[in-house]
Amino acid sequence: MPHFSAGAWAASLTPLNSDLSIDTGAYLAHVRWLLDRGCAGVAALGTTGEANSFSLNERLDLIGVLARAGIASERMVVGVGCCAAPDTIALTRAALEAGFSNVLMLPPFYYKNVSDEGVFRSYAHVIEAVGDPRLKVLIYDFPQMTGLKISTELLARLASAFRDTVVGVKNSSGDWAAMEAASKQLPGFSVFAGTEQFLLPTLRAGGPGCISATANVTCVGLAELAANWKSANADALQAKVTETRLMLQQYPAIPALKEIMAAATGHEGWRRLRTPMVNLSAQDAAALLEKAQAAGLIDAVRQR
Amino acid sequence: MPHFSAGAWAASLTPLNSDLSIDTGAYLAHVRWLLDRGCAGVAALGTTGEANSFSLNERLDLIGVLARAGIASERMVVGVGCCAAPDTIALTRAALEAGFSNVLMLPPFYYKNVSDEGVFRSYAHVIEAVGDPRLKVLIYDFPQMTGLKISTELLARLASAFRDTVVGVKNSSGDWAAMEAASKQLPGFSVFAGTEQFLLPTLRAGGPGCISATANVTCVGLAELAANWKSANADALQAKVTETRLMLQQYPAIPALKEIMAAATGHEGWRRLRTPMVNLSAQDAAALLEKAQAAGLIDAVRQR
Repeated sequence: MPHFSAGAWAASLTPLNSDLSIDTGAYLAHVRWLLDRGCAGVAALGTTGEANSFSLNERLDLIGVLARAGIASERMVVGVGCCAAPDTIALTRAALEAGFSNVLMLPPFYYKNVSDEGVFRSYAHVIEAVGDPRLKVLIYDFPQMTGLKISTELLARLASAFRDTVVGVKNSSGDWAAMEAASKQLPGFSVFAGTEQFLLPTLRAGGPGCISATANVTCVGLAELAANWKSANADALQAKVTETRLMLQQYPAIPALKEIMAAATGHEGWRRLRTPMVNLSAQDAAALLEKAQAAGLIDAVRQR
Repeated sequence: MPHFSAGAWAASLTPLNSDLSIDTGAYLAHVRWLLDRGCAGVAALGTTGEANSFSLNERLDLIGVLARAGIASERMVVGVGCCAAPDTIALTRAALEAGFSNVLMLPPFYYKNVSDEGVFRSYAHVIEAVGDPRLKVLIYDFPQMTGLKISTELLARLASAFRDTVVGVKNSSGDWAAMEAASKQLPGFSVFAGTEQFLLPTLRAGGPGCISATANVTCVGLAELAANWKSANADALQAKVTETRLMLQQYPAIPALKEIMAAATGHEGWRRLRTPMVNLSAQDAAALLEKAQAAGLIDAVRQR
């Protein structure tokens, strides 16, 4: 039994009420829609979900909301990595208590020029403090946000020290060579790409797939590729997926994806952002929506 | 009446108990010692204090400890900047309730490539939510940690929008030209250098001084320079201060400074670190302590 359902995962966006609290109704409906439309799973409370812009209590509350939704454990990953170890420990325990054993764990990300030893000990401290054999940790490697690069050697050390607990990585660096190296050097280690641009290569390398921000609006096309990745048509499907991804990547991810969600659903809560994010300009939003419409994304999201 | 006492401020280190909780007794004794030994003031819960490695509640508790210590408001700045606005708001309110109106505020630092508009709105959101006319905000500009550069134009916009509230900046970038530009272009705005290497230039430019990590162990020499900055001897004193700073800068700041504190006081709690920090190797520690002894730092700290 795999820990993670294979295919394309969505790093879910977080719709907000007018007071910038989480619109849990719209959130849960979106998570269910992503799973129904073919996402292998949902990563809650990640970068795309603006997790670090919410307080610990707000995040704990959202884990509680997800707990009551009855989502299968292998289709959920909960983001838990904070700067302060006590917060990471609290979120990890809450995820486990909610029945979600899979967590996506950023390293502490305030300090820079941190040694590999420091990153290793950061993970070790949290895992030992939680002390739960059910725990499955995906290391979250996102150097563009954290300023820290997590090498294959460090992944190997973590996987070896915490066998059956540190079971994979989400590599959001965009560096395919690093993902390929980790897949080859760490048999059985789940190497997720942080973009669907590498969905097919990841699956062909024996990996579980991707966890992607843009999957919030591209999930239908991604599900088609994931379901047909061994077919003769796979490269053509990947090319189409990549084309859409590269179009979306021209815009700041969270504001752009929320703009598409708002336009497709008519729900203003999708357009709301926590600081430091700001909405697209009216001109950028109009240009994006035109391209998203042409790519079929608006209609796909509308079919809820 | 100035908001900030002029001179050299120490960004205080945080000694820990064996369970990695804050040793509040040793902490408070150190803060008092810094003030007694000539520091113009103390910045609590900043980068050097490992603030972002403590949970919100741990930080609120420490503000409570400081509140009961009877430190004059103009000699204290409390670090309050978190990724999540609700946390920054809670810490700012707590500082004000504790009688400390000066806060040092990082921008939300998880997301990168954030626009000036996004940083402006982040500060605006917190200041408006706190809504307290007593509040005095020092913007914390530390691009090496946050990945965000705060331009003089952005400072001017914040100072103009929140007159009498956004009153200064701590510039930890090491970029003297930026500090000089802000001093010249923003009359009355308190531009603190993040290093005593620029203590004399800052005072000569009409600024309030520096807020420095290394002041935890160099405060005596810094106080001498601050007290004599208009004397004929000032450049020689600055040269000596700079020499010591550059020696210390060869080592990772927090582990190195804690090593000196532990060696000088014999209190092991100074050597303890929160993740992701790690102690110096035995070899590096020995070399550092030899240089610190030669520079007179160990003896200066010992006179408690």
